[in-house]
Amino acid sequence: MQLSTSIPSKIDVQEAYERVAPHVHRTPIVTSRLLDEITGAQIYFKCENFQKMGAFKMRGAINAILQLTEAERSKGVLTHSSGNFAQALALAARNLGVTPYIVMPSNAPKVKKAAVESYGGLITEAQPTLESREAEAERIQKQTGAVFLHPSNNTNVILGQGTAAYELLDSRPDLDYIFTPVGGGGLIAGTALACEYFSKKCKTIGAEPEGANDAYRSLKSGKIEGNDSVNTIADGLRTQLGDKNFPIINKLVSEIICVEEEEIIEAMKLIWERLKIVVEPSSAVPLAALLKERNRFKNYKIGIILSGGNVDLLNLPF
Amino acid sequence: MQLSTSIPSKIDVQEAYERVAPHVHRTPIVTSRLLDEITGAQIYFKCENFQKMGAFKMRGAINAILQLTEAERSKGVLTHSSGNFAQALALAARNLGVTPYIVMPSNAPKVKKAAVESYGGLITEAQPTLESREAEAERIQKQTGAVFLHPSNNTNVILGQGTAAYELLDSRPDLDYIFTPVGGGGLIAGTALACEYFSKKCKTIGAEPEGANDAYRSLKSGKIEGNDSVNTIADGLRTQLGDKNFPIINKLVSEIICVEEEEIIEAMKLIWERLKIVVEPSSAVPLAALLKERNRFKNYKIGIILSGGNVDLLNLPF
Repeated sequence: MQLSTSIPSKIDVQEAYERVAPHVHRTPIVTSRLLDEITGAQIYFKCENFQKMGAFKMRGAINAILQLTEAERSKGVLTHSSGNFAQALALAARNLGVTPYIVMPSNAPKVKKAAVESYGGLITEAQPTLESREAEAERIQKQTGAVFLHPSNNTNVILGQGTAAYELLDSRPDLDYIFTPVGGGGLIAGTALACEYFSKKCKTIGAEPEGANDAYRSLKSGKIEGNDSVNTIADGLRTQLGDKNFPIINKLVSEIICVEEEEIIEAMKLIWERLKIVVEPSSAVPLAALLKERNRFKNYKIGIILSGGNVDLLNLPF
Repeated sequence: MQLSTSIPSKIDVQEAYERVAPHVHRTPIVTSRLLDEITGAQIYFKCENFQKMGAFKMRGAINAILQLTEAERSKGVLTHSSGNFAQALALAARNLGVTPYIVMPSNAPKVKKAAVESYGGLITEAQPTLESREAEAERIQKQTGAVFLHPSNNTNVILGQGTAAYELLDSRPDLDYIFTPVGGGGLIAGTALACEYFSKKCKTIGAEPEGANDAYRSLKSGKIEGNDSVNTIADGLRTQLGDKNFPIINKLVSEIICVEEEEIIEAMKLIWERLKIVVEPSSAVPLAALLKERNRFKNYKIGIILSGGNVDLLNLPF
């Protein structure tokens, strides 16, 4: 396939892997006979819940920081996030000797703030609106000269996130599909690049909550759609696509499957009970999608990226 | 050390490992920098929650069935248990082509019964008293000729359970201590044998809930003590020692540490949050013991056997 020049090349993906690998865990791939029986497929779960800081976001943060110049790194890095990317950027920066500035909404859960602080992140609180967060980030950027890194709409972040699928395909080159959750679009865009360049046949399928189905609608309309409102326990998937990742998704992702909240909770429970691992709700969305459409995927080999395991045990949906 | 002839030999332990290994998972060993920081020790968690059917009990069930004659196997195997051994015996028997008869109390949780049935166990219900369970088991034994296998007080079961520690020491020969939970005594007795024969220095330490501290008292008094009442969420640890495992424990276990219920729950939460894995309350008791006595174990290398992951997600203690 001919790809436009704005889409990263095979060498970009390969180099991102080589750059990131020494700084992250090569996470295990697990299987479950029972889940294979239920779905009729052969599923290979890539356990990014066991990644450093508990989510694939570490990969993108590492790759983005490593692509900065020494002069840029000396001034620090900056993001606004209430989720896993805040923790990832804090830990990645600490591990690389860079100062991380993190803007978080004032209503972010205390456990999230505590985790960012424990990794050495310097937190600035903003009002819980995108405008306030962006204004705070701009103020810090002007003051410190820190480089702003977007959690998902940044080419180096996308390439970093794709290294999970790169590893999965390296271990299981025979996969027919890789399912990923879709939030801001970084993971699925990186995954689609890895499938495009490092597999003969593997297709990328997105899984999204009905209550935040902007990517599903974007793929239909051919332009980035927003969510008027979001309603999902998959808190990592409430964001929308951006101009860096949408062209990749639009070109390379064959399908996005939407699932209901109860399907997400049921899939999450199955993963906890059967794989005996802790994953966050967002991670259960791809299995929910596969369960919903199981008739179409019988006898195929399917990779599922379990995106993370940072969940509040005092506030579980079951 | 000279051991009495009633205590299994080094060759017995070695042969049990070779017999069991083809039929069970060699479970992974995981670490956590944060838990090492908290305790000041280096901890190696042996993840028997990832074992077939979700607990180390699979090892003992496999070993015990494999030690039966063909004639014995043709008549089936039998146990009474409301816990993991019922599931283990059902699955081990199915995998080896043997009929499993399982006596369960009528008040056993539905999920436990469903799990035993899903593995092909033939369930007979008894009243929820030891007398009724034993009477039912005796009746089935007379009727079918099936061999009764005790969940913990059976030398072949003990030797099978010891294979988890055998694998752990094979991977980490430098361990100073292995901590295990203490329930019926099968796991700790098997572990103590593995340490005695396959490590130069590793000592076995038991961990037990205060609310079912019969093994602690037995080690003090030198004879098997019972519990007048039991009060612990660690439902796998409510049973008492037996005449097959107590002599081993009495000879080879250096210490049993007792912990309170809130310490168990806190340790369980730490394991779920930090290791991102699902373990049952019994599995958290050894980490609770290490946390309680951390000052004594600083800088030591410590193995912890995470005994199982079969937990009711609808009834969590946090």
